[in-house]
Amino acid sequence: MIRLELKSAHGDYTAIVGPSSLDRMAGVFEQERLAQPRSIVTDTTVGPLHCRRPAEELGLTTLEIPGGETHKNWATIDGILSHWLALGLDRSGSVMAVGGGIVTDTVGFAAATYLRGISWVAAPTTLLGMVDAAVGGKTGVNLPQGKNLVGSFWPPRLVIADTATLATLPARELRAGLAEVVKAAWISDHELLKLLPEAADIGYDSLKPHEWENLVARSVAIKAEIVNTDEREAGLRKALNLGHTMGHALEAATRYERLLHGEAVAWGMEASAILGRRRGLLSTEGERALRAAVDTLGARPGIADLDAETVCGYIAVDKKRDAQGIAWVLPTDDGVVLDQRVETAEAVEVLKELQRG
Amino acid sequence: MIRLELKSAHGDYTAIVGPSSLDRMAGVFEQERLAQPRSIVTDTTVGPLHCRRPAEELGLTTLEIPGGETHKNWATIDGILSHWLALGLDRSGSVMAVGGGIVTDTVGFAAATYLRGISWVAAPTTLLGMVDAAVGGKTGVNLPQGKNLVGSFWPPRLVIADTATLATLPARELRAGLAEVVKAAWISDHELLKLLPEAADIGYDSLKPHEWENLVARSVAIKAEIVNTDEREAGLRKALNLGHTMGHALEAATRYERLLHGEAVAWGMEASAILGRRRGLLSTEGERALRAAVDTLGARPGIADLDAETVCGYIAVDKKRDAQGIAWVLPTDDGVVLDQRVETAEAVEVLKELQRG
Repeated sequence: MIRLELKSAHGDYTAIVGPSSLDRMAGVFEQERLAQPRSIVTDTTVGPLHCRRPAEELGLTTLEIPGGETHKNWATIDGILSHWLALGLDRSGSVMAVGGGIVTDTVGFAAATYLRGISWVAAPTTLLGMVDAAVGGKTGVNLPQGKNLVGSFWPPRLVIADTATLATLPARELRAGLAEVVKAAWISDHELLKLLPEAADIGYDSLKPHEWENLVARSVAIKAEIVNTDEREAGLRKALNLGHTMGHALEAATRYERLLHGEAVAWGMEASAILGRRRGLLSTEGERALRAAVDTLGARPGIADLDAETVCGYIAVDKKRDAQGIAWVLPTDDGVVLDQRVETAEAVEVLKELQRG
Repeated sequence: MIRLELKSAHGDYTAIVGPSSLDRMAGVFEQERLAQPRSIVTDTTVGPLHCRRPAEELGLTTLEIPGGETHKNWATIDGILSHWLALGLDRSGSVMAVGGGIVTDTVGFAAATYLRGISWVAAPTTLLGMVDAAVGGKTGVNLPQGKNLVGSFWPPRLVIADTATLATLPARELRAGLAEVVKAAWISDHELLKLLPEAADIGYDSLKPHEWENLVARSVAIKAEIVNTDEREAGLRKALNLGHTMGHALEAATRYERLLHGEAVAWGMEASAILGRRRGLLSTEGERALRAAVDTLGARPGIADLDAETVCGYIAVDKKRDAQGIAWVLPTDDGVVLDQRVETAEAVEVLKELQRG
C-alpha cells in the first residue's frame, strides 16, 4: 500500500492506494486512528460487488443509490440526508462513499451539508474516481442546466483506493480513466506515460496488480501536488483542466450519452494539442507525442459527425468561465500553460481539424 | 457607522452597523474595496420596503423569494440558483441578500454551493438577523425532519446592518430579536442590559437611532468575539446556545406556529435560569436578574398549556446532540457554563416550574 498526504483548508487528509484495502477496513481505520464510519453509501452496481465485505466487517447496512449522472441530483441528496437522519447520525459521526466519481461527488456533497458538514471517507472503485474525482476536495451535484453547477470543497478525511476493484470495471471505463492518467502525466510527469498499458485491447489484465497500484499512486501524487498548493482553483489547479474545455463541450453537445467523461477528455486533449501546435506553444513532435499517448488507450466513440459550430457554442456556457471569458489550458512540450484566451472561431477550426483526423 | 472585523477559515470579513447604509450602497462597496454584487435576493415583504433604493443605485433587478420558514427549502434554493445561472453569474461574481434570517440563511447557502461557492453580502433587516443570523458564517435550509439540518459555514464578505430598517419591523419581531441581545449580554457584557429599552410596549421609537446602532454593534461585537475563536462550534461558540435547547423544543412542539424564534429563546433562557439555580450554578439573585431582563421585553405567547413531557421529548432529537447526548449551556452569575448534561426527567421538572410562572 502506498500512502499519500493531502492538504486542505478544512484539514489535511490521507490517500491510501493498494489492492484489497476494502477487505480490511477495520485495520485501515485503526492504523489511521480514525473512527469507523456509521454509514456506507454506494450505488446499485458497486454495492453487490464491493460493499458486502466492508459492511460486514464494520457491522453496517449499506444505502444503495441509483447510478448514473441523471441521479446526481437533489432527490438523491435528499434520500441520503434522510437516511442519515433516520440512523440518528450526529455531527461526530462519519460516513463512507464506495463507488465511482458520481457516488463520491454526491455523497461528498451530502456530507458537506449534513448538519453543516460531517466527516467522510471516499473509497473510489473506478480509475477515474481514484485518480481524479475522489482527490482534491471537490464535491457536486448536477442541475438541469449543467453538470456540477452546485457543490462545495469538502475533502474526505481519508481516500481508500482499492486498486483490486478495477478488475470488475468495464474495459471501456478503464480506458476512459486512463485518459486522466495521460492528462496528469503530461502536466508534470512524462515518465508516467511509460507505465501505461500498451495492449491492443486494454483491460485490467494488461497490467499486474502492483503496476496498477503504482500507476494510480503516481497519478494521485501529481494531483495532490497541485491541489495542495491551490485547493480552490485560483491558479495552478487550472492545469487539471487540460483537455476539459473542448471535452465538456463534446459531452454537452452529445447530451452525455455518447462519450464517457474520460473519452471526451481524450478528444479534448487532442484538440488542445492541435491548438497548442497552431499557436507555437507545442512542437510538432510534442503534438504527435501527446496524441499518440491518447491513442494508446484504444478506440473511443467518434465525433466526425458533429457540427463544429454547435459543439463550440457549448464552450461559452462552461462553468469555468470568468469575467474575461473562457481560459483554456494548452500543452507545451514539457507541461502546460494556463489562461489562454481562445475565440470561438479558432476553436471551431481546431475541432474541424480534429474531426478530419 | 460602526465597523467590526470578523474572522473565518474562509477569509476575514467586515460588519458595518449604522442607519441608512442601504441608501448609499455604491459608496459602501467603494469604501470596502469590494466589487458590487450582480444580484439582489430578498423576500416579498422586504423587497418593496428596502430594496428599491439599492437596486436602483447598483442597477440591478431584485429576485423576491417567498417568505417564511416553510419556504426555506430545496425548491427556493433551486429557484435562486436558476436565477443566477440565467443571469450568467460566474465564479467571480458576488450576490447580496437583503432580509431577515431566513433570507440570509437561504441565500448564504445558495452562495456557498453555487459553482462550489461565490462571494456574498448579507444585509439583515431584522434585529434577529443583525445580531445573530447574518454574523458567524452559518447558512442553512430546513428539511421536513427539522430546521437547518442542511447547511454550511460560508460567511459573507460583508455584513451591512442598516439599523434604520428596524423602523419597519413589527414590534413583536423587534422584541423577539431583543431576546438574542439579552442572551449575548448575559454571556459576556452585562452592561449591555442597561441599553435595553424599558418602555411598557417596546417598539422602534423606544430608542433613538444611535442607540439602536450602539445596541446592535455591541451585540455583534459579542458574537464576533466568540465566533472569531471558534467558528465551527467545537467549544466556546456553544455559549451562543444559551436558551436554545429548551427554546428549540418549544418551537418544535408548537410546530413553529406559536412562537417566534426569539420568543422561544426567551422562554428557554428562563428555563435555563431555573435549571442553573437548581444546580447551584446561578444564585437566586442571578436567576431573578436574568428572568427580569427577559421580562423587560414584554409579553410573548404562553406555554402553560403544553405537555411538558411532550415538549422535552423534542430535546432528544435536537441537532446539537453529540455522542454523549444533549449538552446544555447554563447561566452563571457572570456568564455561562458549557456542556451540562441534563436528563429528560430534570428538564421536565424545570419546564413545569417555568409553566407555573
